[in-house]
Amino acid sequence: MKAAHASAFNRKDQASVDTLRLLAVDMVERARSGHPGFPLGAAPMAYVLWTRFLRHDPGCPGWPDRDRFVLSPGHGSALLYAFLHLSGYGLSLDDLRNFRQWGSPTPGHPELGLTPGVEATTGPLGHGLAMGVGLAMAERSMARRFNRPGFEIFDHHTYALVSDGDLMEGVGAEAASLAGTQGLGKLVYVYDDNHMTIEGHTDLAFSEDVRGRFLAYGWHVSVVSDGGDLPSVWLAIDNAIQETERPTLIMCRTRLGAGSPKEDTPGAHGEPLGAEALAATRANYGFAGQEPFFVDERVAANFLARARAAAAKRTEWEATLAAYGEKFPDLRAELGRRLASRLPDSLAQGLMEAAAGLFPRDAQVATRVASGKILNLAARDLPELIGGSADLAPSNKTAIEGEDYVSPLRPAARNVHFGVREQAMGAILNGLALHGGLIPFGGTFLVFSDFLRPALRLSALMSLRAVYVLTHDSVGVGEDGPTHQPVEHLAALRVIPNLLVIRPADAFETAAAWGLALDNPGPTALVLSRQNLPVLPPGDFPALRDGVARGGYVLSEAPGGRPEAIVVASGSEVHLALAAQALLAGRRALRVVSLPSWELWDRQSPEYRETVLPEGLTRRLALEAGRSMGWERFAGPRGKILSIEGFGRSAPAGTIFGKLGFTPENVASLAESLF
Amino acid sequence: MKAAHASAFNRKDQASVDTLRLLAVDMVERARSGHPGFPLGAAPMAYVLWTRFLRHDPGCPGWPDRDRFVLSPGHGSALLYAFLHLSGYGLSLDDLRNFRQWGSPTPGHPELGLTPGVEATTGPLGHGLAMGVGLAMAERSMARRFNRPGFEIFDHHTYALVSDGDLMEGVGAEAASLAGTQGLGKLVYVYDDNHMTIEGHTDLAFSEDVRGRFLAYGWHVSVVSDGGDLPSVWLAIDNAIQETERPTLIMCRTRLGAGSPKEDTPGAHGEPLGAEALAATRANYGFAGQEPFFVDERVAANFLARARAAAAKRTEWEATLAAYGEKFPDLRAELGRRLASRLPDSLAQGLMEAAAGLFPRDAQVATRVASGKILNLAARDLPELIGGSADLAPSNKTAIEGEDYVSPLRPAARNVHFGVREQAMGAILNGLALHGGLIPFGGTFLVFSDFLRPALRLSALMSLRAVYVLTHDSVGVGEDGPTHQPVEHLAALRVIPNLLVIRPADAFETAAAWGLALDNPGPTALVLSRQNLPVLPPGDFPALRDGVARGGYVLSEAPGGRPEAIVVASGSEVHLALAAQALLAGRRALRVVSLPSWELWDRQSPEYRETVLPEGLTRRLALEAGRSMGWERFAGPRGKILSIEGFGRSAPAGTIFGKLGFTPENVASLAESLF
Repeated sequence: MKAAHASAFNRKDQASVDTLRLLAVDMVERARSGHPGFPLGAAPMAYVLWTRFLRHDPGCPGWPDRDRFVLSPGHGSALLYAFLHLSGYGLSLDDLRNFRQWGSPTPGHPELGLTPGVEATTGPLGHGLAMGVGLAMAERSMARRFNRPGFEIFDHHTYALVSDGDLMEGVGAEAASLAGTQGLGKLVYVYDDNHMTIEGHTDLAFSEDVRGRFLAYGWHVSVVSDGGDLPSVWLAIDNAIQETERPTLIMCRTRLGAGSPKEDTPGAHGEPLGAEALAATRANYGFAGQEPFFVDERVAANFLARARAAAAKRTEWEATLAAYGEKFPDLRAELGRRLASRLPDSLAQGLMEAAAGLFPRDAQVATRVASGKILNLAARDLPELIGGSADLAPSNKTAIEGEDYVSPLRPAARNVHFGVREQAMGAILNGLALHGGLIPFGGTFLVFSDFLRPALRLSALMSLRAVYVLTHDSVGVGEDGPTHQPVEHLAALRVIPNLLVIRPADAFETAAAWGLALDNPGPTALVLSRQNLPVLPPGDFPALRDGVARGGYVLSEAPGGRPEAIVVASGSEVHLALAAQALLAGRRALRVVSLPSWELWDRQSPEYRETVLPEGLTRRLALEAGRSMGWERFAGPRGKILSIEGFGRSAPAGTIFGKLGFTPENVASLAESLF
Repeated sequence: MKAAHASAFNRKDQASVDTLRLLAVDMVERARSGHPGFPLGAAPMAYVLWTRFLRHDPGCPGWPDRDRFVLSPGHGSALLYAFLHLSGYGLSLDDLRNFRQWGSPTPGHPELGLTPGVEATTGPLGHGLAMGVGLAMAERSMARRFNRPGFEIFDHHTYALVSDGDLMEGVGAEAASLAGTQGLGKLVYVYDDNHMTIEGHTDLAFSEDVRGRFLAYGWHVSVVSDGGDLPSVWLAIDNAIQETERPTLIMCRTRLGAGSPKEDTPGAHGEPLGAEALAATRANYGFAGQEPFFVDERVAANFLARARAAAAKRTEWEATLAAYGEKFPDLRAELGRRLASRLPDSLAQGLMEAAAGLFPRDAQVATRVASGKILNLAARDLPELIGGSADLAPSNKTAIEGEDYVSPLRPAARNVHFGVREQAMGAILNGLALHGGLIPFGGTFLVFSDFLRPALRLSALMSLRAVYVLTHDSVGVGEDGPTHQPVEHLAALRVIPNLLVIRPADAFETAAAWGLALDNPGPTALVLSRQNLPVLPPGDFPALRDGVARGGYVLSEAPGGRPEAIVVASGSEVHLALAAQALLAGRRALRVVSLPSWELWDRQSPEYRETVLPEGLTRRLALEAGRSMGWERFAGPRGKILSIEGFGRSAPAGTIFGKLGFTPENVASLAESLF
């Protein structure tokens, strides 16, 4: 049986492989930009994977039970586009001709949402590999939750092509180690082991024994000594599918730029072959007489036939799903809701109402603690919530109480031990969100958002619903000192496009923030205090309920409604503003504005913003226990800013705040100085 | 011989180990904050390493040929401070009592510069491990450069204690792989293998075979099954020293919180033991009747005797150095200059003058290309320059031409292949800079500064002279698309305290920027264009020569010296400002201000700044091909900002710039609209 399949490759298959190769290099040549080396070397293994194993339907790229394929070396995008074109994903030859041009669905690196069949935005190396781990965890979780005997609603594999760079990047190492611990048996990675990087042979900087390393992680590893040999690749992938308890790495020895005059040289990597080398490559593959972008009819028919055969599985699946819906209507409804990313009705409102019961008027509650409680409330109504922390759950308050932790024995659990691996955690959140049916969250200290950043950027670029729980949000961290005290991180997060950053001032703002985060189609960073803060009961602060959603609002109006000055702040500093308002009461009329989210503020109408920060009211004091960059526009031309411009210090939090001027008295004095 | 040494531990040694333990937990208890678990478990192996192997002199913590010791799990600082106190580094018992207090030399995590004997700021896990790799590369480089037969000026080891977290973090994996390739035989890491993390047993998230992984990297690995057994630890370290061609990982099985009632529980990690558990721990170690911070006289004498014995080596070394100076006066002079971080006279001026010969008036030169040429010029006069790229040298232009690459056979070469490992590159730059005698540089694309960030922050926190060469600085990257196009990164770098960010506008500003970077005692990020830019010959733009050092300056005054409006920009956008000035010539009098560095600008006097951006001149247009955050203060209350607020697109650079309004015509039109 195996031998039969392995030998079932013929000249048409080889012609198909070579067509993928030539289409890719033609695209690069025409764009005068791109990466011919990877497609030339990796086309055979990609071809075998795509045409013999991939569970997919070009007519329905969103099929929930399709296999997920990630091209981790995103610079090889031309190869993927060639396949998508030939398989009927709706990419035209003109689209291939417009490779890397403005507005085309064939950008330089694969981008989620631009191209049917592209499962993830890739390019930053290591992240495709790490996102695949999240995709495979998601499949296993959904399968355990929804499958019933005779109804395998989820039963697909996660495949990726990975490159030397993916294996050198630390995020890949972090994710691979966790994949081993998690025993992700349906994760199959094909490694384009071409021994060549941009700077030269891999021996120069990457002489490690990759096989030994992955075995140490607990992976199944196989080696294909000739990655151009279709039957050998087939056997290795088939073997990987038989292995159900460990992820598989198939090391395929390939040649960068195979068949071109630049074969096995770094020059084949990242620039067009050039007319002469292209002609030689063309001749070498038997395309000498053909125009660019030539596709033989038999080759075209082969790809379409393979795609049609694969698509038949989807028809079967739809029938299974229909029968499942009749037999398990509740599960079917939950599945439908989750796949459509619909929240239960009035979830956010419920969180706010429940908060009133959780946080009594005179309580002192750290916003990280409030976050943990709200998360647990939300988790009751949202079985799709799944997440954890990079080994800081007791501090980040990210555990769902009474729930198990994800493991091979408990794949549908909702708590995850990510280990001390912030970057991979972020990438895995991305993979979980990409899969569909899950809303992932992950926690660490705000200062370690630096480690998350490459993943966060991809969350934002792909607009994935993931919630980052970033606690210990200022020098309020205290004794752990400057390595653990964020100063620049709030500004550095706010500057990432399409990332919603919310820094709530108390438990109620935290409840509102969670509601907004869950409702946000993109990623959200919740920035939370380590230290206790007074609660702001909605009874006393009625504007709070709707104010957070507007990004900024008048939390406490000046006595008599006639403000002479404004103190504007976010997070824990809002309480300093309130204290200063009280200290100056009767002498100066201060309005206190809470500004938990710049992104939400920017979406408000100019009219609304004018009601909160009137242009004419130029006596303004902005407070933030972090760098001031960007606060200028809230402070205005005559305002002042109390901020922290240098690194923090190791000392009890109260001491640090005092030394840096974050006291009611100093804030009052600064407010007074505006007059 | 070995057996004799291995058995040469007696009760005094055990009492000394236990004194380290108790001092550490007493510090934590008194501070009401800190980490008792690590010191209790790791004290024995630290004791053996510090008293039997460490080459050091408490009287001269800066001895160039001392062994370097890095405490990678920086949260174990109390253990290190206890040792430094006992060994005569000038830390008093009161300093220990002031652990984690404002202004004390005993902060929560070790901080370079605050405490004699602390070699590196640690806390962000993985970075100590990775910095050690740089320290060991530096030792090998300096040894090859300066040692002569009979004169071993450099011959020391780099040691670190490392923890589970260090091994889980990707940056540690990246650095360990490179250390294997580099065959760093004098790198010895002792792994506190305690099977416990904050969230629980390491099996939960870290079940990999660490030994197998490090063997796969090419390390020598040994296992000590009882990390509390002093002779076993001694033998393992001695064995590591015999191994000269591979780095060594000694896996010592220990128990978190050993000897306390919380032993082997996560609760021992990060909070004081509490009175009851502390009393039990005290009793367990035979300290029941003693006051906190008790040190037995014999123990005190033991540590001081060990330190004195170690210090004798320094006396020998000083004699060797004196003789070396007589025999090799030129080498001695170079060594002295390099260790003192002194640059050759008028280096910066020389670079500017040489630039005039390199960049002819009408040339078009990408600033990354100019950077490569200036780097090569500087490298002629600065043998201490060493660096490379995270596998992007041909793009980053970071290779020193005609120089070899660092390898076991060529340890004193000055080019480094870091591999696709940005974060480890940054950490290794930190290690190289920490060692002394070298000025490291490292390149990647600006967009991948996200991966560098944890290392960059430590460069800034420690104020290390390292030059980050960040090329492809905007959507000018073109076809590679948004994953490769920085938008938020300039702002995100500028917000890091103590990081000098310079974005030069042309080849001459680049020459000036390199001069400033080399002269900067802290880290510098050079932000450079992929695309060609016109050169700004100093003959035409005389203000340029001194202007860059001021952060901002009038590059081109309005005709007649009477500006009606200002266009202020950095980098490639400066040329758009000049073009708009020309387009509007005769109609509107525009001053063009080049603003390559905000940090340098902020150091100027208000008077100087007023001459460049007069408060009264409120018609201002700010240009930057990135997010606008922070530009408000330069644009002023009535100004406008042309920026890029969302992610980029895949297309030729010119197309993207055009679509986003970065054209001379649009800039002129915006400038016109100020009137």
